[in-house]
Amino acid sequence: MKSYTEYLWFNTRKHREFINITDKVEEALQKSKIKEGFVLVSAMHITASVYVNDNEPGLIQDIEEWLQKLAPEGPTYNHHQTGETNGDAHLKNLLMHHQVIIPVTEARLDFGPWQQVFYGEFDGQRRKRVVLKIMGE
Amino acid sequence: MKSYTEYLWFNTRKHREFINITDKVEEALQKSKIKEGFVLVSAMHITASVYVNDNEPGLIQDIEEWLQKLAPEGPTYNHHQTGETNGDAHLKNLLMHHQVIIPVTEARLDFGPWQQVFYGEFDGQRRKRVVLKIMGE
Amino acid sequence: MKSYTEYLWFNTRKHREFINITDKVEEALQKSKIKEGFVLVSAMHITASVYVNDNEPGLIQDIEEWLQKLAPEGPTYNHHQTGETNGDAHLKNLLMHHQVIIPVTEARLDFGPWQQVFYGEFDGQRRKRVVLKIMGE
Repeated sequence: MKSYTEYLWFNTRKHREFINITDKVEEALQKSKIKEGFVLVSAMHITASVYVNDNEPGLIQDIEEWLQKLAPEGPTYNHHQTGETNGDAHLKNLLMHHQVIIPVTEARLDFGPWQQVFYGEFDGQRRKRVVLKIMGE
Repeated sequence: MKSYTEYLWFNTRKHREFINITDKVEEALQKSKIKEGFVLVSAMHITASVYVNDNEPGLIQDIEEWLQKLAPEGPTYNHHQTGETNGDAHLKNLLMHHQVIIPVTEARLDFGPWQQVFYGEFDGQRRKRVVLKIMGE
Repeated sequence: MKSYTEYLWFNTRKHREFINITDKVEEALQKSKIKEGFVLVSAMHITASVYVNDNEPGLIQDIEEWLQKLAPEGPTYNHHQTGETNGDAHLKNLLMHHQVIIPVTEARLDFGPWQQVFYGEFDGQRRKRVVLKIMGE
């Protein structure tokens, strides 16, 4: 069994941002030399998400508007009594989930035709990390 | 370490449908001969879900009504400017998540008493796939 | 490849409760002697969640209020025709997801600075289980 670990760093220009990281995950897979296994792609922060969906700008705008509706920025959350202002970003993280597992088959990400993996930042403009961990043979 | 890969195909009669795939996952596990490990069950499309819950028709109806409330079909999503009409199905996929990992212990799916694994279709009546990938020994 | 399996039992005093289980997961990891791999932490019930977020009491209160808003207790769900009264707890499980994978690097949970793993109970006051399954080398 082989394993390979790599960290991706982000420091977004905007407070919220959606970044297609499929190419970076594919590069890590090639470096790992693993042909059959799992790639875990997992945000190391509790105000960001890793998710799989379509790379279509209109849809990305829909996702942002939907998140604002279901986990709105603005209300005074109990969490804000600590001095924090990012209660909404914690809830957005829970809604979108912070990780995915991508299967690896014959040395490739075993994705369907439209699947792309994204980093979703909900409280950006600071340095944050995603861990890639690949296990297999 | 062993690995085993299988694809399940679906072509639902209804636009939305919930299909219990527990038996198919168990069959794949038996074919794999793996006794300790993980089964990844992952939708290869961005308008479908794989989830674990109860096989009770009333609850399945509750899930569908709840999804229509939180990610409604009908509104004109930005995504529809591409000609697509399935913006709601993308959001339903994000809400329900597209994959689960089932632990394998002593050659069986290590589920609690009521856990069953489902394929949730949100934009059906076309051929779609789920990948099963089993890793272990 | 090594694997290690352990079950955590819960019997909460309150109907809903959020329990930090990070220490218990770390103890299991030490017992497993696994240095590189994955820890699956997965609820064995369909009315409970396992999630990663911040150990801050105000935020935990926000999560509970948010869940009550998006998947409210009270309405008569179709599921209740079976005699059950916990339809909301099934939907809360779907919203929060029932499992996480924690990467293991150099014999430690490879978490960011604020990440902690929680058991979220939505229909408690009875005995329930979480499975920990660690795979790696």
